[in-house]
This record gives sequence, structure tokens and C-alpha cells, in this order.
Amino acid sequence: MDNFRKMWTELGMDLELHDQLIQDMSSLHKKTHLSQQNRPKTMDRFDRSFHSSHSGRVAEILEFRKNGGKMIGTFCIFVPDEIALAAGVLPLPLCGGSGWAVSYADKLFPRDICPLIRSTFGMALSKTCPYASLEDFAVGETTCDAKKKTWDLLGMKVMEVPQRRNEADRNLWLEEVYRFKGMVEELSGITVTADGLLETIKLVNQKRSALQQIDEFRKLDAPPISGLDALLVAQVSMNQDIHAFIKDTQALIEELQERVDKGISAYSEQGKKILLAGSPSPMGYAKVHHIVENSGLQIVADESCTGLRYFRDLVNEDLNDLDEMMKAVADRYFGIDCACFSPNSERIENIQKLIKDYNVKGVVQSILQYCHTYNVEAKIVEKSLKKIGIPSIKIVTDYSQEDIGQIRTRIEAFAELLMD
Amino acid sequence: MDNFRKMWTELGMDLELHDQLIQDMSSLHKKTHLSQQNRPKTMDRFDRSFHSSHSGRVAEILEFRKNGGKMIGTFCIFVPDEIALAAGVLPLPLCGGSGWAVSYADKLFPRDICPLIRSTFGMALSKTCPYASLEDFAVGETTCDAKKKTWDLLGMKVMEVPQRRNEADRNLWLEEVYRFKGMVEELSGITVTADGLLETIKLVNQKRSALQQIDEFRKLDAPPISGLDALLVAQVSMNQDIHAFIKDTQALIEELQERVDKGISAYSEQGKKILLAGSPSPMGYAKVHHIVENSGLQIVADESCTGLRYFRDLVNEDLNDLDEMMKAVADRYFGIDCACFSPNSERIENIQKLIKDYNVKGVVQSILQYCHTYNVEAKIVEKSLKKIGIPSIKIVTDYSQEDIGQIRTRIEAFAELLMD
Repeated sequence: MDNFRKMWTELGMDLELHDQLIQDMSSLHKKTHLSQQNRPKTMDRFDRSFHSSHSGRVAEILEFRKNGGKMIGTFCIFVPDEIALAAGVLPLPLCGGSGWAVSYADKLFPRDICPLIRSTFGMALSKTCPYASLEDFAVGETTCDAKKKTWDLLGMKVMEVPQRRNEADRNLWLEEVYRFKGMVEELSGITVTADGLLETIKLVNQKRSALQQIDEFRKLDAPPISGLDALLVAQVSMNQDIHAFIKDTQALIEELQERVDKGISAYSEQGKKILLAGSPSPMGYAKVHHIVENSGLQIVADESCTGLRYFRDLVNEDLNDLDEMMKAVADRYFGIDCACFSPNSERIENIQKLIKDYNVKGVVQSILQYCHTYNVEAKIVEKSLKKIGIPSIKIVTDYSQEDIGQIRTRIEAFAELLMD
Repeated sequence: MDNFRKMWTELGMDLELHDQLIQDMSSLHKKTHLSQQNRPKTMDRFDRSFHSSHSGRVAEILEFRKNGGKMIGTFCIFVPDEIALAAGVLPLPLCGGSGWAVSYADKLFPRDICPLIRSTFGMALSKTCPYASLEDFAVGETTCDAKKKTWDLLGMKVMEVPQRRNEADRNLWLEEVYRFKGMVEELSGITVTADGLLETIKLVNQKRSALQQIDEFRKLDAPPISGLDALLVAQVSMNQDIHAFIKDTQALIEELQERVDKGISAYSEQGKKILLAGSPSPMGYAKVHHIVENSGLQIVADESCTGLRYFRDLVNEDLNDLDEMMKAVADRYFGIDCACFSPNSERIENIQKLIKDYNVKGVVQSILQYCHTYNVEAKIVEKSLKKIGIPSIKIVTDYSQEDIGQIRTRIEAFAELLMD
């Protein structure tokens, strides 16, 4: 631990505030994940990875950078990992999930933008983000107004995610993916080759496949892993070293299979199966998942960016030519059913399919406050669910703890409604 | 008046609620515009046009439609008037400025989106918008998250405004302008020709030139027209028949010249010159303008969409070829310095130029609540102003009257600071 304190000091961090942040995150993790009764044993690996995200993982990256490695910060699942990795650059998602950090963003941002952005930059501004001085640069994107203008404010590099799904949009996005390739190649001095890209495509596919496999278990009558833990696995997947993560998921998948064979469920009681939809839940944030599963409901699918939206689709591996691979990568990301697209009927269709595949009985839309895209789209989702007789509830919330009682009351009423 | 009541009934409107809306709008107009001391006489024409926007103007459009004319509703200055008009289609901006209507939107929208959208659709939902049943269709755009997702919710036609200013964006936008041409041609059955488009380019240029000429007078030491009245003229320009509007502005320009010759100012006292920046002020909304000018300050320039952003640039008229004209139209709109662009350095440069040209001593940033783009960009504007020693203040507000006292206090303090 002393070594880490030395490292944090060298990274220019505020140790006192950072202690507060870590304490806050650990205490929340204890109250949510660790308070569950029937966890798979292997989850302790992911608990450790969660805790090491500000310590051991930072030390790894520091070492990687000392040996000439390059790292970029990202804030969205639209930034293509495969291409960064193929240029020898480590892409690290830096979206903040800590409510503790939010108020530190007030000197830079209006208060009425989403807690995700405020938490992310609240950590940077309070000198409690260990990655702030580690990244070579950060790459933003144009998926929402508040993020888009934040990149302008900070003078950051930006990838333009188009807003519609026409041919011109697809072309623009492909150009952006090439431009991104140029950025990371310039940073590392390593040119992306067909062989190199194919290798990283396969590697990232392997990671997403592992997440898919874990999700498959959640389709069962008695899921061997909770929605809260599946969220933690997805959150960790965005921070941990990809090889180590794949290894840990293999162990988890083995244990989940054993549990299924022995008839061990993650839930001690029967409960209605729920789809969680809406805004992402970055590492450190699991408020709605926790409340929902504490109310006797089972989150068996999560279609957010920290759920299926991140790992639903793989990149076609059956290619030899670099340009074809670039196009395949671009296509895979262009298919993400983000609410930034107008219209976004793909998402409505995906949700309908999930409801069948996961035998879902109700939907909880978890919307981060001031996230206009998911908040307005929630009306479209609600309407489409009504048509097929699936009850849904929309929770608009932030990272604070103050509305927990109120949300619990609403979710419990929703759970009762589902029991009828 | 009885004729209008008959017309409103035939349009399916709620007469009782509409009476309330009209009373609210008239009473506000009296308190703000009509309470000014030194108004140009010609402003009574624009007062009339303001009042007729729900009566005489509607009757005109009804007549136009009876004779086969087509009308489309628009919500943004990115939708190119020139092209609609060249296809014989009347484009009518429908952005609501009435605080009265806002709460009627609550059944459709989240409360935490901007009052402009809520007012617009609050009027439609409360059956107090006479245009709702008059438009053949409405064309939205992708300039902000809340509007973009509103179009999805309502299944509307959408023009994609790109988010950056690269070549791929310019190409995408040109395609969108062609797509819009197709939409209006299909609606009217009239094909846009080079001659036809050149004529409407000249016509719209004439309207924007008139607005520019009025603005020129505001550069003088003693402006013959107030910022509040200049705003009304701009608001009316988006509703009134274009020919009638140009005629009225010619009369106003003549009177303004006379006033200048006689040394008549719109302001009875000396006051510091202010630039108003930020979100638009649609017809019916003049809260911040009113408070600022009532605090002894003079708004001599307004860079918003209901100000210079609407009429700063003309379309090149020196062309013969239809495709060249289409490109010229697209280029003109692509140059709009909207906060939807990332980055939007053009706007910062334009503001700096305005400050010199209009001898501005302070800037009021008027931001509609939950308008993330202008709200976050306000920080960039503020920073750029600090560098050149121009004080600025940011007012985040909605269409309600409740925060008037608070805003007045802040603006008065700002005015005192400028006097020092």
C-alpha cells in the first residue's frame, strides 16, 4: 500500500481526497455487491480488479508506459479498441461512476449536465483520477451535447459519431475510424497492419464473447449470477488488462456452469425477470441495479453501454485485407444502438428481442439525470413495451444517495405490480 | 374577431385555452415592448404582426392552402427557406416562446428539457397552436439532443446537421439539402429550377439584408431602436409574409434614418452597450432582453438565432447553375455558428468581431435551461471574453416569470460593475 501512496504522489494526486474517494467507493461496494448472499466465488477476482483500478492497474500502466507504451483515455464505447490496440496503444475508458467526485466538477461545468461527465472531470479536477496524468491524450466523441461541448471546452480530440444511419453517415463514420487510426499510429509510431488488426479484432472479440457467454447463463430459470455481479464484470472489462480479464472470465464461466449443474442460483428467492435499459452505469455506480435486485426482482439483461450494447456485436474475423477489416470494424460500431441516432428503431427491435430471449417480465429504464437522449427515447421505449404488454418504469436519477428511499418505494410498487 | 373565432374552431383549437394564451402573450407584450418610452412609430406595424400571428396571418395561410399552397413547420434556422420557397412551399418556424404553454407538454416530455421545445409542443398539445393542423409536415433537425429525440418521438422528417466542419460533414450536409429539396418538391409537385431558386435566394437575401440594415443603426452612439424592438422585428421576420415584412422594414429603416438625422435615440439615458449571446428568444419571449434594457443597459447586438445568427450571412447570388446554387445555399447554412458544432471557434471569432464593430462593453449570455450546447459553450465564450477584458454574465433561465426578481438583481449588479 505504501508503494501505491508513493505512486499516487508521483502522479500529482491529492492523497487526502483520494483516500476519501476510495473509502466512499469501497463502502458502496460493500453495501451493494458484497452484501449479496449467493455470489459465485470467482467474483472475488472481479472485486479485486475493481479495487485495483486505482492501484495495481495504475501501476501496470505506469510500467507499460515506462517501457514506451502509450495510453489514451476514452469516454464512450464508440471509440474502437481494436484499432488502438493494433497500433500498440492502450485505450482506457475513463467514465466516472463516483458520486463523491461530482461536486468537484462545479467549477468547470454547469450543474445541470449528467453526473457521468461531472464525476469523470470531478475526479480529474480534485486530483483523484490516477489516469489523468497517464494518458497521452483523450479521445471524445459526439454522442451527446454535454460530452460534445465538454471536448470543446477542454480542447480534446474528437471522433464524430453521425446522427443518422444513411449511407452518407456510414461514409462519414468510416472516415472517422480511419482518422482515429491515424491518431493512434502517430502517437505510437506503429503502423496498423492487416495481421496486427486481425489479431486485435480476434482478441477483442474473445473478450466480448466471454461477456456474451456469461450473459447466456442469465437466460436460465435460475440464473447463477446476479445482475449486480454481471454489471461488475462488464465494468471491470473496461479497465482490467484484456488478457487477465479473459482469463478471469473463463474461471467465472466454469464456476457458473458448475453452479447450474448443481442447481445453485444467485437469487435465494424466485423473482420476476427484469431488463435494465437506458444510460450506462460506469464503475462505482450500481445504485439502480442494487435497489432493483434488493426488491426481489432479477436483472437478467442489461441493454446499456455497460451491458449488451458493449458486447452484443463482434467484428467479422473472416477477412484478409486491411481496408476490409477497417470497414468491418467501422460497421460493427456503426451498428451500436445508441440513443444518439435519429431514429433509433434498431434499439426498439433489440429490446423486443431481449424480452423474448431472456423471458423478461418487466423493464426498468434507468436514466441518468439530464441525459436528454435516453430520457426522451424512454417514451418511445415505453410505448413499444405497452404494445406487447410489458410493464415498465422509468427512474431518472444521479449518483447521489439521497433519492434511494424514493426509488426503492417506486421499485417495490413496480415489483408488486409484476407479481399480480 | 368573430371570424377568427370561427377559424380557430374550424382548426380544431381549444378556444378557451387559446384565449388564455393570447391574453398572456398580450399582457407580456404590453409590459415589455409597449412600456418603452422612445419607440419608432413604425414599430406599431410589428406589434400588429406579432398580434396577428395567431389570427390574420393564420387566415392568410389558410387562404394560401385553399388555393393549393403547401406549408411546412420548421424549428430551426438550419432549414433552408430559399429551397422551400423555390418549390412553392411556405416554411414557417414554429418555435414556441410562450411560458403559458410549457406545462401542457408534461404529458409528452420530461420536464428537464428546454422550455422552447416544451412551449412549442405544449401549444400543440393544448390545441392552442393554429398551425398544428395547417402544416403539411414538419421538418426537424439534429442540432440538439432534446430536439433530435423529439422528432423521433413524433416520427417527424429530419434534416441531419453534422457536428463538425470537416469535408465529410460538408458533403453530408449538401446531401441533406438535396434531400430537403426532394421533400418539398414531392410535397408541392413543383420542381425547383435555377431561375426559381435564384429568385427565392434574392428574396430571402433581401429580407436578411433589411435586418442587417436595421442592425447597422445599432452601431451608432445613440441607437434609434432598442434591443427589445430589434428582437421583435427579428421574431416577426420568421412569421410574417416575406413581402409584407420587407415592406414594413423599409418603412422602419426610413424612420430610423430620420431619427438619426434628428438625433433621436431609443434610450432616454446613456447606457453601456451590451451584446446578447446564447440561446434563441422565440416570439413571445423577451424576458432577458427586457430586464437588461430596464437596468439601464443597451442591447446593441444579439448574436443568437433570433438575431445575427439568422441574418448575418447571405447566399451568393452570382450563379446560374442549379447545382452551384444548391451548393451556395448549403454553404451559407453550413457557416451558421451554432453551438451544435464541435469545435465552434467561428462563433468565438464572430463574437470578438461584434464587440469591436458594435463597441460593446459587456456581454449577457442568455441560456435557456437544459440547453447543454450553449450552456457548456458559455464557458468557452466567457474565457475568450476575459482575455480581451470584456465582462460577461451568464443567465440560465426558462420562460417562467418567477426568477425575474433574481435576474434583475444580478443584471443590475452587472450594470454597476460596467459603470466603474
